[in-house]
Amino acid sequence: MTIILRLEIHKKEITFGEIATVISKSGGDMIAIDVIKEGPEMTVRDISVNVNSDEKQKMIIDSIHNLPGVSVKHVSDRTFLLHLGGKIEVKSKTTIDNREELSQVYTPEVARICMAIEENPKLAYNLTIKKNTVAVVSNATAVLGLGKISPEAAMPVMEGKAMLFKQFAGVDAYPLCLHSNDTEEMIRIIKALSPSFGGINLEDIASPQCFEIEQRLKKELDIPVFHDDQHGTAIVALAGLLNALKVTKKRIENCKIVVCGIGAAGIAITKMLLAGGAKNVIGVDRHGALNRDETYDNEMWNWYASNTNPSNEKGPLSSVIKGADVFIGVSAPNVLKVEDVKNMAHEPIVFALANPNPEISPEVAKPYVKVMATGRSDYPNQVNNVLCFPGMFRGVLDCRASDINEEMKLAAAEAIASTISEEELNEDYIIPGVFNDQVVPKIREAVIKAGYETGVAKKKD
Amino acid sequence: MTIILRLEIHKKEITFGEIATVISKSGGDMIAIDVIKEGPEMTVRDISVNVNSDEKQKMIIDSIHNLPGVSVKHVSDRTFLLHLGGKIEVKSKTTIDNREELSQVYTPEVARICMAIEENPKLAYNLTIKKNTVAVVSNATAVLGLGKISPEAAMPVMEGKAMLFKQFAGVDAYPLCLHSNDTEEMIRIIKALSPSFGGINLEDIASPQCFEIEQRLKKELDIPVFHDDQHGTAIVALAGLLNALKVTKKRIENCKIVVCGIGAAGIAITKMLLAGGAKNVIGVDRHGALNRDETYDNEMWNWYASNTNPSNEKGPLSSVIKGADVFIGVSAPNVLKVEDVKNMAHEPIVFALANPNPEISPEVAKPYVKVMATGRSDYPNQVNNVLCFPGMFRGVLDCRASDINEEMKLAAAEAIASTISEEELNEDYIIPGVFNDQVVPKIREAVIKAGYETGVAKKKD
Repeated sequence: MTIILRLEIHKKEITFGEIATVISKSGGDMIAIDVIKEGPEMTVRDISVNVNSDEKQKMIIDSIHNLPGVSVKHVSDRTFLLHLGGKIEVKSKTTIDNREELSQVYTPEVARICMAIEENPKLAYNLTIKKNTVAVVSNATAVLGLGKISPEAAMPVMEGKAMLFKQFAGVDAYPLCLHSNDTEEMIRIIKALSPSFGGINLEDIASPQCFEIEQRLKKELDIPVFHDDQHGTAIVALAGLLNALKVTKKRIENCKIVVCGIGAAGIAITKMLLAGGAKNVIGVDRHGALNRDETYDNEMWNWYASNTNPSNEKGPLSSVIKGADVFIGVSAPNVLKVEDVKNMAHEPIVFALANPNPEISPEVAKPYVKVMATGRSDYPNQVNNVLCFPGMFRGVLDCRASDINEEMKLAAAEAIASTISEEELNEDYIIPGVFNDQVVPKIREAVIKAGYETGVAKKKD
Repeated sequence: MTIILRLEIHKKEITFGEIATVISKSGGDMIAIDVIKEGPEMTVRDISVNVNSDEKQKMIIDSIHNLPGVSVKHVSDRTFLLHLGGKIEVKSKTTIDNREELSQVYTPEVARICMAIEENPKLAYNLTIKKNTVAVVSNATAVLGLGKISPEAAMPVMEGKAMLFKQFAGVDAYPLCLHSNDTEEMIRIIKALSPSFGGINLEDIASPQCFEIEQRLKKELDIPVFHDDQHGTAIVALAGLLNALKVTKKRIENCKIVVCGIGAAGIAITKMLLAGGAKNVIGVDRHGALNRDETYDNEMWNWYASNTNPSNEKGPLSSVIKGADVFIGVSAPNVLKVEDVKNMAHEPIVFALANPNPEISPEVAKPYVKVMATGRSDYPNQVNNVLCFPGMFRGVLDCRASDINEEMKLAAAEAIASTISEEELNEDYIIPGVFNDQVVPKIREAVIKAGYETGVAKKKD
């Protein structure tokens, strides 16, 4: 990791050599020096230093702080540098070299294109960016592990998402962080924005608002709408589970599956499990297993209790986990105990997806589980929604789908699972890596097929 | 101009040679043939043909229509081809080559950038695309000469505008055509969108809605808002007038100026004229000169009558044009008669800006006027707002202006005028060409200077 320290140095009090010595002694490897300002008494310099840990970085900065005559004005690291000025840009596909070309891409010739679309609205898919463009829309009410932040502060996440859309699937995605917390207003805004886009990727919108916004938009718009935090995670989790079941030679319809954390992601995962054939899913939240003898304030929980938990089990996680074949957690760190894992069925499958700290640490759980997955990149089997959204939108844009339905999501999960061959498959490799170049084309193909089969794909020939 | 004809040819009824002969005889130069489908009886081919006029194109198509055994399935010309798939794309500034880079631009590392902005909102200008990005927002209620069309149909105009922003000034502009005709809703939507942008360019929004939307957004947002149809046109027109006055050695404060067509552009032009020192401006619309003895339904007209026309002149254009030094038309074709021009003061200046057909044709007017300008590219002195918006937004983004005020607009007009030196200046060259590479840097510099002088430029050091 390279950090850049901007130092203000009072020449009479300290020499640059003394500073360099302190940096070296603290474990930093100085690789460049730039003079920013030079005065008779004072100089400002940017010092690029290679460090191999955050602790080293802190040590270096603390050591400089302790020196007389020098102050640290600013510290940039590579992550900050990558973000300077934003991570994406808008580019023209052609340059305008002369007046004739100007008149073709702009007034007056462009009016002919406008009129062609006005007469035949479908031509928007041929003659405008709608063909290949997705809006990444958030109101920043549930960003990563950060919760609610300002829309401005959430932009780096959405810009990063736009990068991934382009690099992995050639999709032009544009980030829009809205200053709005009102559900009806969000719906109105996104509907008003829809003419410019071929699809809507909802992102980092808090529960339960995210359900209403997505459901209404799906009903009221003729372009696909996809809340990635729900369905992206659910699709990748199901893909992993399909392969984990192959490893353990179990069938989903015979499994007892405990889903822990019944928020947006937990509900979406449960719906996918049911669509995928699961018969015995039990949802657990802070108050224990969701069951039909209770009435919940959260409407989704009542739906959940009515559609899962066939034996109407009750009690805390430690109780319902007994005999479970599968645990899927999208909840909080350390809610699953070693004793719980020991109480699960033979060759249990544990997906501990809480981020950054899982429901149980892989080191602790591994001796007692057959297949373990997390949301982290530093353990095997990362459930990462980057695996899903690029291929999903590549598919729906290419067949002009008006919706993303359960069949398409299921097809995407199976496609992701299928990228790992039977020979490759083992308990430490149930989910492909994010740079696996088979993932996007396989999802695309499966989604298009399911789109035509279910009648939502509108592109002819 | 190259057109591409897709022909369905029934082989038994006609040979390709016969078709080729007809195309050549009709004045077409065949440059390429692509076989699209080949069957035993029928073949589909794309024939690329160079033609030098729309009439030739029509002649060729008509001639083919008259042939037996061949039908024209589709005609594409270069303008259509340029629009296939849209004219702009979203690009990443860096590629993501490995897991470490993925974690820097996206989760988990990106969270540090989000938190930095959350703690210090100004960092959005350093660490997100807000630094260099403008929204081009329209509701497609007044597009070019087409009037109200669908938002989808207006996208090619906004995409073209985004191309010009990037090519001429390096500004990342993103087109958003909103499905909304409600003024309050438009204001709410644009306010909600504002966190992602450094400026708002309003475009092709009908009058009088455009006034309220712009005024309210200027008051309620801390980023600059600019309705280009009003102010872009006004700035370039004033730039041209400043140079026309140099040619005629007249002073603006002594001129009688008749503005014809008191819509959005006419009002904006008048405000710029007053800001530029004009004392005697008379506005004329269909009902004649706007004066203080009448009360108008249109609130802007009452404002107009109170702030212009010091001698309270009345009557039709043919009456108030008498003795005028300057005519500026943003109205309709042929409203200015030769007699009117003859009745103007010595060495009159006529800006006939109605598009595509001016208030008086240059051929007719030229013998009686000293300086003539139009909105067209096929006559000298084109008043083209492409000259203004790229440099204007380059300037406001670079100094982080919170507003675009009258001083900045005046500075931009003077900057455009100044790109023509005294030696170059003559009655046929009062406005620089759109490809003049001095225009953007000069506007930028002038706008930044005016921005700091008036306290709206917020960038320090």
